[in-house]
Amino acid sequence: MRRPWHLLLGVAFGLASAFSCFLAGIYFQHSHATRQLQQLIQQDVYAYYISPKIFAVFSFFSVANETSNNMQRIMKYGFPGLDDVRLYSDFVLSYDRRNRVAHWVCEHLQLANLQGARGVGRAGATYRPDLSVPSNFRSTLADYKHSGFDRGHLAAAGNHREQQVHCNETFLLTNIAPQVGQGFNSGAWNKLEIYVRELTQNFGSVYVCTGPLFKPRAQGNRKWSVEYQMIGSSMVAVPTHFFKVIMVESRLPLGKPYMEAYVLPNAPIPDQSTLRDFLCDIREIEHFAGLHFFQGIRRSAIFGSNYPSESQVFRDFA
Amino acid sequence: MRRPWHLLLGVAFGLASAFSCFLAGIYFQHSHATRQLQQLIQQDVYAYYISPKIFAVFSFFSVANETSNNMQRIMKYGFPGLDDVRLYSDFVLSYDRRNRVAHWVCEHLQLANLQGARGVGRAGATYRPDLSVPSNFRSTLADYKHSGFDRGHLAAAGNHREQQVHCNETFLLTNIAPQVGQGFNSGAWNKLEIYVRELTQNFGSVYVCTGPLFKPRAQGNRKWSVEYQMIGSSMVAVPTHFFKVIMVESRLPLGKPYMEAYVLPNAPIPDQSTLRDFLCDIREIEHFAGLHFFQGIRRSAIFGSNYPSESQVFRDFA
Repeated sequence: MRRPWHLLLGVAFGLASAFSCFLAGIYFQHSHATRQLQQLIQQDVYAYYISPKIFAVFSFFSVANETSNNMQRIMKYGFPGLDDVRLYSDFVLSYDRRNRVAHWVCEHLQLANLQGARGVGRAGATYRPDLSVPSNFRSTLADYKHSGFDRGHLAAAGNHREQQVHCNETFLLTNIAPQVGQGFNSGAWNKLEIYVRELTQNFGSVYVCTGPLFKPRAQGNRKWSVEYQMIGSSMVAVPTHFFKVIMVESRLPLGKPYMEAYVLPNAPIPDQSTLRDFLCDIREIEHFAGLHFFQGIRRSAIFGSNYPSESQVFRDFA
Repeated sequence: MRRPWHLLLGVAFGLASAFSCFLAGIYFQHSHATRQLQQLIQQDVYAYYISPKIFAVFSFFSVANETSNNMQRIMKYGFPGLDDVRLYSDFVLSYDRRNRVAHWVCEHLQLANLQGARGVGRAGATYRPDLSVPSNFRSTLADYKHSGFDRGHLAAAGNHREQQVHCNETFLLTNIAPQVGQGFNSGAWNKLEIYVRELTQNFGSVYVCTGPLFKPRAQGNRKWSVEYQMIGSSMVAVPTHFFKVIMVESRLPLGKPYMEAYVLPNAPIPDQSTLRDFLCDIREIEHFAGLHFFQGIRRSAIFGSNYPSESQVFRDFA
């Protein structure tokens, strides 16, 4: 009866040492790969962008980190500017404390954002000031009241219907700018927002950057000047124009993204004009806004960015 | 002869162990203090500001880190804003890419900055564009040529005479804004710069924050609008006003700093007007500039900030 005992002990010992060697192997490989990965992430910006996902693959217990994933997902192609950047649940915004409207609002639209759950929508949302902005730089409901201007959305409410909180946050006044109502907010601007949703439905993944412009006008005698109204006691600037820079990701493997931009004057626009009339060179918007769009990707790698006079995607939509 | 050998060995051993215990004591105390310090620095913003100096006291080999010390020295009381912040050798600047002039320029003036070395001065300096600004957002010499406006300094050249490179950097076009020449740049604005240097001479340590304003004007019918000219093909904004926020540190132990602010219209100002006429409430500048000055210190801890209608320091200067 003694030998089986010894045998059992020997086998157990062998197994234990094998198992611990196995664990050591796992540990060695894990730390080796982690070190290699860390180097890659330090060298490559794209690896950095997806680093949480890479690490999630390697980790034994996965950690949910939705907030930072959201920021990385929406801002995948870079920040247009870095002044007072604010992260909301489904869009990212840069706030202009001098003019009390946003510099830019970035969104990443996928089918899930548009379709939304039952009962989610603007019915449950109310316009309200963003109390996280210091009171000296904050716009209020009173500023817009009797101003003659609409409270126009930059990130459209209809783009954020996945959760009610997403929709509610588009009604914060940081995401709102004074817009001409008749013929703009309820006219051409609305058409542009619908067009962006159609792009999302057809192509699945669209990046949109929206913001105000304060464009100079020729005064004759080769002089130029900027002029815009201020409303309310907080002095909220009324932009002369609004822009939307749109990047559509290709569905084809290794397909180039497609990029185009629109600038609409903040004024009544006749019904018979088409969106095509407002196509604009992205570099012109960058010059007047002081921003740089989608800098994470080389312009040469983008289809359409140098053809501002006609839209390639447009043919699909009549 | 054997006993002294043993004794010597015993003494040597005793000394060695005493010495290593001493070293261990040093090490223990050093690491303990460092840990305590680290905690303090994480809890207290002022401790953070002077942390390089504290660590220099504890380190065995001191490390010179002048650049970051400079930033910490000049920005001791906090950043007015964080848009495109740029560190120069003797001042810190935030750049407005949309208007192609600075948002603000911060300086810390001490006697050494003003007196300067032999031969240092504006004779050796030339206006030049700052090539670190992307070309799309950069102002150039051609923009100012034949514009009818002076290339006005924000950080005055006469404030940076300690080294020639300090003076040269004030001539970079990021530190320059279009100013009316006759009666402003060579008149009241110059007087204000001289006044700041007098304050420095009398009190030893002065913080100055200078920048442009684009102030709205009443258009009647309770409407307000902002209007300003743009010069050159890069479209450089001509500010309607310029501000200087000044903080004088007290020479008394635990004395409160003194703070006052001036706003001058970018227009010819009659010679008979005094600087006192242009004293301004700091909160008004903050509202129109979208900035927050010296936020590192509570307003209640500053003498004079709530008395914008008269200057306390002024009585010392006639």
